[in-house]
Amino acid sequence: MHVVAPLDSKSVDNPPKAAVRDLRRVDIHPNHWYPLAWSREVKRGKTHAVRFAGEPIVLARTESGKVIALEDRCAHRQVPLSGGVVDGEAIRCGYHGWTYDCSGKCIDVPYLGRERLPNGVRAYPCREAEGLIFVFPGDAALAETMPLPPLGSVADKAYKTRRFGREVACHYSFMHENLMDMNHQFLHRKQMGKMRARSLGRRRGDDWVEVDYTFAREAGQQPIGEALVFGQSRKSERADHKDVMTIRTQYPFQTLRIRTSDGTIVMDLWICYVPLDREQRTNRTFGLLSIKRPKIGALLDVAWPLLVWFTERIFKEDRWIVELEQAAHDAQGADWNHEVFPVINDLRDLLRECGAPAARRVIPIEPSAESVAV
Amino acid sequence: MHVVAPLDSKSVDNPPKAAVRDLRRVDIHPNHWYPLAWSREVKRGKTHAVRFAGEPIVLARTESGKVIALEDRCAHRQVPLSGGVVDGEAIRCGYHGWTYDCSGKCIDVPYLGRERLPNGVRAYPCREAEGLIFVFPGDAALAETMPLPPLGSVADKAYKTRRFGREVACHYSFMHENLMDMNHQFLHRKQMGKMRARSLGRRRGDDWVEVDYTFAREAGQQPIGEALVFGQSRKSERADHKDVMTIRTQYPFQTLRIRTSDGTIVMDLWICYVPLDREQRTNRTFGLLSIKRPKIGALLDVAWPLLVWFTERIFKEDRWIVELEQAAHDAQGADWNHEVFPVINDLRDLLRECGAPAARRVIPIEPSAESVAV
Amino acid sequence: MHVVAPLDSKSVDNPPKAAVRDLRRVDIHPNHWYPLAWSREVKRGKTHAVRFAGEPIVLARTESGKVIALEDRCAHRQVPLSGGVVDGEAIRCGYHGWTYDCSGKCIDVPYLGRERLPNGVRAYPCREAEGLIFVFPGDAALAETMPLPPLGSVADKAYKTRRFGREVACHYSFMHENLMDMNHQFLHRKQMGKMRARSLGRRRGDDWVEVDYTFAREAGQQPIGEALVFGQSRKSERADHKDVMTIRTQYPFQTLRIRTSDGTIVMDLWICYVPLDREQRTNRTFGLLSIKRPKIGALLDVAWPLLVWFTERIFKEDRWIVELEQAAHDAQGADWNHEVFPVINDLRDLLRECGAPAARRVIPIEPSAESVAV
Repeated sequence: MHVVAPLDSKSVDNPPKAAVRDLRRVDIHPNHWYPLAWSREVKRGKTHAVRFAGEPIVLARTESGKVIALEDRCAHRQVPLSGGVVDGEAIRCGYHGWTYDCSGKCIDVPYLGRERLPNGVRAYPCREAEGLIFVFPGDAALAETMPLPPLGSVADKAYKTRRFGREVACHYSFMHENLMDMNHQFLHRKQMGKMRARSLGRRRGDDWVEVDYTFAREAGQQPIGEALVFGQSRKSERADHKDVMTIRTQYPFQTLRIRTSDGTIVMDLWICYVPLDREQRTNRTFGLLSIKRPKIGALLDVAWPLLVWFTERIFKEDRWIVELEQAAHDAQGADWNHEVFPVINDLRDLLRECGAPAARRVIPIEPSAESVAV
Repeated sequence: MHVVAPLDSKSVDNPPKAAVRDLRRVDIHPNHWYPLAWSREVKRGKTHAVRFAGEPIVLARTESGKVIALEDRCAHRQVPLSGGVVDGEAIRCGYHGWTYDCSGKCIDVPYLGRERLPNGVRAYPCREAEGLIFVFPGDAALAETMPLPPLGSVADKAYKTRRFGREVACHYSFMHENLMDMNHQFLHRKQMGKMRARSLGRRRGDDWVEVDYTFAREAGQQPIGEALVFGQSRKSERADHKDVMTIRTQYPFQTLRIRTSDGTIVMDLWICYVPLDREQRTNRTFGLLSIKRPKIGALLDVAWPLLVWFTERIFKEDRWIVELEQAAHDAQGADWNHEVFPVINDLRDLLRECGAPAARRVIPIEPSAESVAV
Repeated sequence: MHVVAPLDSKSVDNPPKAAVRDLRRVDIHPNHWYPLAWSREVKRGKTHAVRFAGEPIVLARTESGKVIALEDRCAHRQVPLSGGVVDGEAIRCGYHGWTYDCSGKCIDVPYLGRERLPNGVRAYPCREAEGLIFVFPGDAALAETMPLPPLGSVADKAYKTRRFGREVACHYSFMHENLMDMNHQFLHRKQMGKMRARSLGRRRGDDWVEVDYTFAREAGQQPIGEALVFGQSRKSERADHKDVMTIRTQYPFQTLRIRTSDGTIVMDLWICYVPLDREQRTNRTFGLLSIKRPKIGALLDVAWPLLVWFTERIFKEDRWIVELEQAAHDAQGADWNHEVFPVINDLRDLLRECGAPAARRVIPIEPSAESVAV
C-alpha cells in the first residue's frame, strides 16, 4: 500500500530537535492498567509468574476464584513466590513456608510466633475483564481513579473475537510505529498484494494521536485472507474502497478500526505491548481482534482458520522487522531513524511525552537486615 | 519440619549491622584442601581439566599412577595443558610440545637447547584420599601444615558410602545455609511429609558452628525413603524421635550426622562446595553419604537404589531453590535476605569471617615478554 | 616437525619492549581489498549479508549480473537491506520499499515525490575475481590505486585449486602466527608423523615477512595425505627433503609455497582472515589451495577427496588451538604470550605496525533527525 501525502500537511512540520530523548530508552508509564496474562493462564489454586518492565510479579487464583497479584519475591530469602503453593486465599512460599495474604501481609512463618511476624511483600491492584488479567504497576493510590481501558467490540455479541499475541524482542515504541504507518504494507506484499493507501488526515490530543486511511488496489487480485479482514471489494478491482481505517494510539494502548461508508465497524482491534525486561527491549503483546459477524453467522466460523493463518503471517512479518529495528538500535547505540511521515513523528512525540520520566531507572539497594531476633 | 524456638535463644541476638560485607561476594578462602575431582575421573596417562574459583588447573595421572596438578596454561601460548598429553611423569603441551614436570618446571622445548629453557608454570600441592583428589589452591608453603579434612565414616567398613554431587549455579554460602536450616523441609514436603523439627541448641567456635535438632512427625505416614536415611520410627507415628541430627560447618566443609539415643552414628554426611568461576557464582558439590549397615547387611544393598533415588530428589529440589536465590541476588544486586533464624545468622557471620579478605579480587596483568632470544 | 635454530640468528634479537600495544586489540587496516564472500554465495537477483569488523554490508548480484556492496542499513528505519529485494540494478528495502542504486543513492520512496528524496547509504568499492568477491572497506578514494592481491596459482591451468574456509573465533593475528610457526606441527602429529623442520632464514620488508623451511622425517612412515601435499619422499625415509617451504605474510594476506629443487611450485596456498565482529575476535577464513597437477592429471582428481579430508583435519586442529588461544587472552585480559621464535616476533611487530591506528575504535552517535517535512 502507498500513502498519498496527507490532506492536512500544509502546516509546517516541527523542525528537527537538538536534544530529544532517545525514544527507545523511554520507559512506559507505570500508572496505567496493563494486561499481564490471559485469564486461562491463571488456574484455580495455582500461581503464575509474570513480569512488568523487570519487576517479577506472581499472579494467583485463590480457592475462591479471585486473582491476586504480589511481588514475586519472598520477604525472607527472595525466592519467587510463584514457586510456592496457593493455600486458601493466600500464597505460601515453597522454601520455608512463609505465607502472604492478598494484601501482601505476612500471615504465617511456621517456626515463629504470630506476634513477631516480619514485614510482607508488595501487592498490586488487580482486575479481570474479558479474559485478560490487568495489573496496575504504578502508584497504587491512583489505581481506583483510573478506569480499565475500553476493549473495543469484544463484549458485543455481533462480533467474534480472536485473542492473540506473543513475545516480541523490541521496545514497545517500534510496535506502535509499525501499526500506525500503513506505508509498511510493502512488508506484507505476499499477503496483501499491491495496495495504495491514502491518508485522509491526522488528529492529536494530549494522550492520543490518530490517523485515517482509505485504500485502493493498484494491481492484482485481492487475496482471500485480506477480503476476510478488510471486506470484499464491492464493484470493480480498480474502484477505490469506501471503507475507512482509523488507527489510534490512546496511550498506552492502540486500536485499529475499519468502518464501512454506513458507519458500521467491520473490524475492531485492541492491542497492548507490555514491556517485560527492565531495559524494556522486549514486550509481550496482547491483542483482541473483533470481526463483525456477517448476516449468515456461520460463514465467519468456517473462514476463521484462514483468518487466523492470515493474521499470524502478518504478525510474523511484523515481528521479524521490528526485532531487526531493535537490533539496529542496539548496534548503533542510538536512534538513527530518519522518519519522513508526519503521523509517525506525532506518534513519537506522544510516546516520549506520555512515557515515564527519565530519572526513573534506579537499581534498588536495600541493606540486608541481619540478625532479626526470634 | 518445623523448628521450635531454640533453647539457648534467651541471649540477645546481634543488632543489625550497618555495613557488613555482602556475603554473596565473599570469596572462599584458598588456604584449605579442596576436592577438585573424583579419583575415577583422572585416568592413568590422561589429563583432566578442572577449575577453582576461575583458576584453570590440569590434573594428570602420570604413568607411575601419581596425580599431579599444574596451572592449566602453557607458559608459551597460554593454551590449556589439559589439551596436551601425559609423557611419562610429565605433561607435554599439545601445540608446540613444551613439556613440564610435576613441579611445573619446563623440561623440554623441542626446538630449543636444554640450556635456554624458559620459565615453567605454577604447580599445586595435590593429594588423593578416599576416591577424591584434593588440591591446595592457596599459599603452597602452608599446605604441609594443613591436614586433609576428616571424611566422616567413609573409611569405616561398618558403613556404606554413596559419592554424589553436581554443579550448582550459586555461591557456596547458599549451600551451607540450605543444609543447616532444617526449617526448609517444607521444600521437601513430597519426600519428607510433615515433620516438626526442634532445635536443641547451637554452638560456635572460631572456624565452626553447629546445631542439633530432633524431629517429630506431625501428620501422615513416614515415607519409605526417609525411613532409610533417618531410621524407621520405632513406636507410634506421633511419638517424638529420639534421634539427634547435628549439622556442622567446619570451615570450609560441612557435615550432617544422625545419632541414635545410644550414640551410634546411623548417617554421616561430609560435603564440600567448590567454587568454579572467578565470581564464585557456581560451585561443584562433592558429597560422601555414609549409612550404617544394618545387622543383615544385604538389606542396605537391596534398598540402595531407593536411597539413591530419594537423595537425588532431595538434592534436585535444593539445587532448584538455591539457584533461585542466586538469581534473586543477581537481579537485586545485593543481599536482601531477612534472616530470622539465629543459627543461620551465626553461620553467615562465620562464612564472612573465615572467607578470603575483600581485596583479593585483582585481574592479573602480566606484560608480554616479547622477543626472547633463541 | 622441529625447527633447528635459524642460520641467521646470530644477530641479537630485540629486547623485550615496555609498553607495546596488545596485538590482540590491533584492528586490521581497512585500506585493503578483502574477500567477503565466495561468488557462488551471491546469486543473481538476490541479496547476501556479510560483515567486516562489525560493519554490516549487503552484497547483491543485480539482474545484469554485477555485484554491488552497500551499507546493510536502510537510511529510514535502519533495518538490513539484505532483508529486501533486488529490483533491476537496485535494492529495495523490505519494510517501506525505499530503493537504492549501486552508488547508495536513494532513488525511490514509494510515498514521496522524486524531488524530495532523502539521503542514501554508503556504497563500497566491489570487485569479483577467481570466485571471490572483494570489497574495499576503508577510504574509497584509495580503492582505485590499490590493486587486487595476486591469488597464487589459482588462474594457472597446471594447478587444481581447492577453495576452503570457515569462521574461526579468534583474532586474525593468531591465524598468521599459527601458519608461520612450523614448530606447531606437534599439534598435527596424528596426520604428519614426526618431522624435523629446519629454518633456512627469514626476511622482512615494510609490509611483509617470510621464512623458509626444509623438513626431515624423524621416525615412522610418511602418511599418505601428507605425501599428496608435500610430495612423496624420493629416496629413503631418513633422507632430508630437498623441497623448500616458504611462508609469507604480505599484509594483510598470507601465502605458503612449496618448491622442489628445480624451482617448481608444487603447492601454492593463498589465505586471508577477515574480521567479522567489531572487537575482531572472530574471523572468516578464505583459502585457495593450489596443487600442481602431476603428469598423469587424473591421479590428482582421484586423490582429491583424500586431500580434502587431510586438509580439513589439519584445519580443524588449528581452529581448535587458536580458539583456545583467544579464550586464554579473554580470560587473562592481556597478551601473556612468551614467544621465543624470532620469526614469530618479527611477524607480531609487522601486524602491529601495519594494523589500523589505535584510536580507530569509536562508537558512532548520530542524532536522530526528527520530523523531516513531507
